[in-house]
This record gives sequence, structure tokens and C-alpha cells, in this order.
Amino acid sequence: MIDINEQIAKLDWSREPRGLYEPIGYTLSAGGKRVRPQLVLTACRMFGGEETEALPAALALEVFHNFTLLHDDVMDHAPVRRGRETVHIRWNENTAILSGDQMLIEAYKLIAKVPSGKVLSTLRWFNEMATEICEGQQLDVDFEEREDVQLEEYIEMIRLKTSVLLANALRTGAYLAGATEAQQQALYEHGIHLGLAFQIQDDLLDVYGDPKTFGKAIGGDICCNKKTYLLLTARDLANNAQRARMQELLAMPAGPDKIARMTALYDEIGVRQVAEEAIAEHTRAALQLLETMPQNEATESLRALANKLENRKS
Amino acid sequence: MIDINEQIAKLDWSREPRGLYEPIGYTLSAGGKRVRPQLVLTACRMFGGEETEALPAALALEVFHNFTLLHDDVMDHAPVRRGRETVHIRWNENTAILSGDQMLIEAYKLIAKVPSGKVLSTLRWFNEMATEICEGQQLDVDFEEREDVQLEEYIEMIRLKTSVLLANALRTGAYLAGATEAQQQALYEHGIHLGLAFQIQDDLLDVYGDPKTFGKAIGGDICCNKKTYLLLTARDLANNAQRARMQELLAMPAGPDKIARMTALYDEIGVRQVAEEAIAEHTRAALQLLETMPQNEATESLRALANKLENRKS
Repeated sequence: MIDINEQIAKLDWSREPRGLYEPIGYTLSAGGKRVRPQLVLTACRMFGGEETEALPAALALEVFHNFTLLHDDVMDHAPVRRGRETVHIRWNENTAILSGDQMLIEAYKLIAKVPSGKVLSTLRWFNEMATEICEGQQLDVDFEEREDVQLEEYIEMIRLKTSVLLANALRTGAYLAGATEAQQQALYEHGIHLGLAFQIQDDLLDVYGDPKTFGKAIGGDICCNKKTYLLLTARDLANNAQRARMQELLAMPAGPDKIARMTALYDEIGVRQVAEEAIAEHTRAALQLLETMPQNEATESLRALANKLENRKS
Repeated sequence: MIDINEQIAKLDWSREPRGLYEPIGYTLSAGGKRVRPQLVLTACRMFGGEETEALPAALALEVFHNFTLLHDDVMDHAPVRRGRETVHIRWNENTAILSGDQMLIEAYKLIAKVPSGKVLSTLRWFNEMATEICEGQQLDVDFEEREDVQLEEYIEMIRLKTSVLLANALRTGAYLAGATEAQQQALYEHGIHLGLAFQIQDDLLDVYGDPKTFGKAIGGDICCNKKTYLLLTARDLANNAQRARMQELLAMPAGPDKIARMTALYDEIGVRQVAEEAIAEHTRAALQLLETMPQNEATESLRALANKLENRKS
């Protein structure tokens, strides 16, 4: 099996001009779980494909993902990513913009390296995915300004922002290994459910995570009134009195008191169970889709990933 | 013949989310000479190709070019482009970054629409070109901080930043129309010379242009000590006394006096003639390359363009 970290480390960013390529190497060397390229390779193995033929697409998706993080960090003015200074802090904002642009181009260069008869479909799906991710990012921004965001709009936003990249990784790996269209589509759907479960779990851990294992401060989303799965569900399920209390809490300044009182309201309304059920439902749907796939170590590893995401603590 | 402005106007940017697509429509509706897509279509006609088959590539290059302008304007904090507010002013910086990213993706979506057997080469050249343009932009930034920029490095920078887009437009149009590799290559070289002549002319007009027809203030490059073809040539040709005067002038604050005195120094050193000869040389080389091409209205229009650029006043 291909060691994806080794392959990422092999990408050469020592080219000139240094100011363009060094930040790309820096970004890609920061680690991360490499989930997306792993999904490409796993889907490829599931259908008996040659991992080396899927490798360029796997790398393309990891480079693309890191490009989105780089530009997102500029837009969010985020100072730290994976325990290190972000590119716009370590260098400057213009470097982060231009090196990010080049990273997106590098992702396309990798797409052009899949077996030549399969470039066109791989490219079209990549384009569709990339577009959806930008749309998801824009919706996320739009939602900050809107007070009337509906839960289903939120689900659509996280589908675009998170799920389609996982889904496309799986579909692309399966396609390159010669899976049928139905199989490709089923794995795509698996990735969509996986992403939704992951993102709702993210919202849940922000409030109910164990501070010892979560890695971030608890209640960050509550402090900034972020319209999460929990907040939108609570608003939808609240009675009039609860909704009035919620409005008061949203107007409170950030701090431990706000977090404690909003969490108590969430408890009272029972949003934790609703969110846990949604996660379980998406995980079930994801696992169900694997039943129709060939059963081998690759299928098993997707099953393990789905279960791990459902039970993760951080 | 295809009316390129009509085709650009037909691209649909009315999609949701508006915050992502509206700035793209705004940017593309600002006009401009549409030189790059015209070059694609002209090269296609020269070899008897179907313009409709080259149209997606023509549009891709125009969308790409406008993407670079959008992100460049953010990086330069430029408030105005083509007489209108830039996107980061009219909206905000984050919008300019994200809509720019989406524009780059849209260019790739157009590339994926060329006849399917020709997508791969078109894509690979597009990737190479896009990379070179980012490298050129980075060199341009690097040169601002460096005092030891050599004239040949400057030429390489403008080749990357300006020429390769024109060159690739011509090569792509010729390729899509079935030209031989030698013909594609010759047209590529034509585009390189055209771009160099254009850029040196740009530097020349900044100092020696007619204020009535130039459209911008004269002496802008002198005011900010920009390392142009004129400045680097003057430095290389100056005797010791002239070089000392030049250093003094570079240390002067921006203003009419600085412009007048630097222009006088340029006159004394004779850089105007050197630049004019370089422009004439590149124009000659560009025209020479057309001699080996099929002779028709398309070839004639490239000839007219080269002559027009050499004699332009703005």
C-alpha cells in the first residue's frame, strides 16, 4: 500500500521563485490526517485498481484541500493552523493569496497526470467539486449576516463545504479503478453522509466535547453566536419562552456565563439527542451504502472510519 | 466570425450564491480589448479551424486573465480598474479572494469544454501558462525589494507575466484547428515577441507618451522608482557620473521635478532609442515568424496587431 505522507513529502517545492513555492511546501508539510487522499486510494483498492494510477488524483485533492485552508485562513484572519503560524502571518497576505492561487493550479497539474483516457471525467468532477466548495464557503459567509437561516440551508452549506470533497475523493478513486457508475455513485453518497456526520459531530463536540480530549476551548461556537446544527435545531424546537431566553443569550457578551446558560438551554430543549440521532442516521446510511460494495480490506477500512468518526472525541 | 464580446456577455453569472458570482459578472463586463480570446480565434481561423471549437479555450483565457487582474488588484490595493471600482473596494477583500478563486475554476471548466480528444494538451499548456504567470507575478514582487535586478531577469519576468498568455492563446487556437507542431511553436514564439514589444512599449510610454493620448499620468514609474526596461537600461549604460546622478534622483521624493530630471538623464544616456530598437526588433521577429504561416485574413490581422502595438500611443 502506498504511504501517502511519503508521497506528499516527495512533491518538490524547491523551485524558483522561492517566495511562490516555499509557502506551498510549508503548508503541505504541516501534516493533518490526509483523509482525502486516503479515501481516493482506499476506493481504488476496493475495486482492485492500481494505487499508483490513482495517486495523482489523491495528491491533487490533498493539495486542493490545503489551498482552501490557506485562503480560508486569510479570509478569517486566522493566526494559527495545525500548531504553526499561518502563511499570511509567517509571510504576508499577498504571499498567501498568490501561493494559494499557485496551489490550486498545482492541483490541476496533478489531475492532468491521471491515466490520459481518464483525465476528462476526473477533471470535470474536480471542477464541479471545487465550484461547490467555493459556493459552500460563500454560503457560510452569507449565513453570518442572516438571521433567518433554515436548518436545511445549513445542511446544504456543510454538504458543499465539507462533504463533496470526501465524496469526490471516493468517486474518483472508484472511477480510476474501473468501478461501475452505480458503484461510483454509491461511494459518492457514502462520502456525503460521512461528511455530514463529521460536521454535525464537530458542532456537537464544540459544546459537549470533553475539554481534556477536544483540543480546542469548549463553547467557541456559542460565544460567537455561530449558526450551528445545535443552534438552528434549538431555535426550531424551542417553545416561545425558550426562544425568548435564547434571544437574550445571543445578545450576551461572550464568556463562560453565556456558554453555561446556552448549554443549559440546549439541554432543556434536548438538542444533544437530536444531533446525536442525526449523526447516527448519517453513519447508518453511510454504512448501508457499503453493503452493496465488494467486501475487502478497503471496505472494512471505510467502515472503521465511519465508526471512528461517529465515536470521536476530538 | 464569432463576436467575442457577445460570447463573453452570454456567460451566465446569475447563479446562487450571488456573493460569489456577481463579482465575476461585474469583472467580465468591464470591457477591455479582449486581445487574448481574439488571438485564440484568429489562430484557429488561420488554419481553417471551426471557431466554435476554439471558443471555450478563448473564453477560458479571458476569464483567466481577468482572474489575475482581480487578485493583482487586491495585492496592489488598486482602487480602480477600467474606470470602475475594483471588486475589493465595491465588495470587500474576502469577496475578491473567493470570487477570484472561483473565476480560476471557471476558466478550467471552460478548458474542459474543448473537443474531448484535445482537452488534455489544452489543459497541460494552460497549467504551464498559469504557473508561469504566477511565477512572473512573484518575480515582479521580488524585484521591488532587490537592487541588483539585471535587465535579462526583467525580460524574463515580463515574458512570464505578459507574453506567455498571448503565446499560449495563439498556440492553443492553432492546435485546436489542427496546425502542425512547428506551426504551433512558431505562433507561440510570435506571441512571446508580441508581449515583450508590448511591455517595453508600456515602459516607454510611461515616460515618453503624449499626456493627451496616454490616458494615465506620465512618469508614474519614475515616481515609484519602478525597475522598468528604461531604468535598468539607463543604469547599465550610464557612466560613473551619470550613475551617481541616477542614485540621487532615485532618492528624491516623487513629483514633477523628479520626473523631469530623470527624463533628462534618460535622454542624455539615450535609453529611448535603445528601447525603441528593442521594440522594433521584437516586432520584426514577430512579423518574420508569420512568413512561414498560411497567408490569409487571420495572418493579416496578426500582422496588423503587431504593427499597431509598435506604433500605439496609449
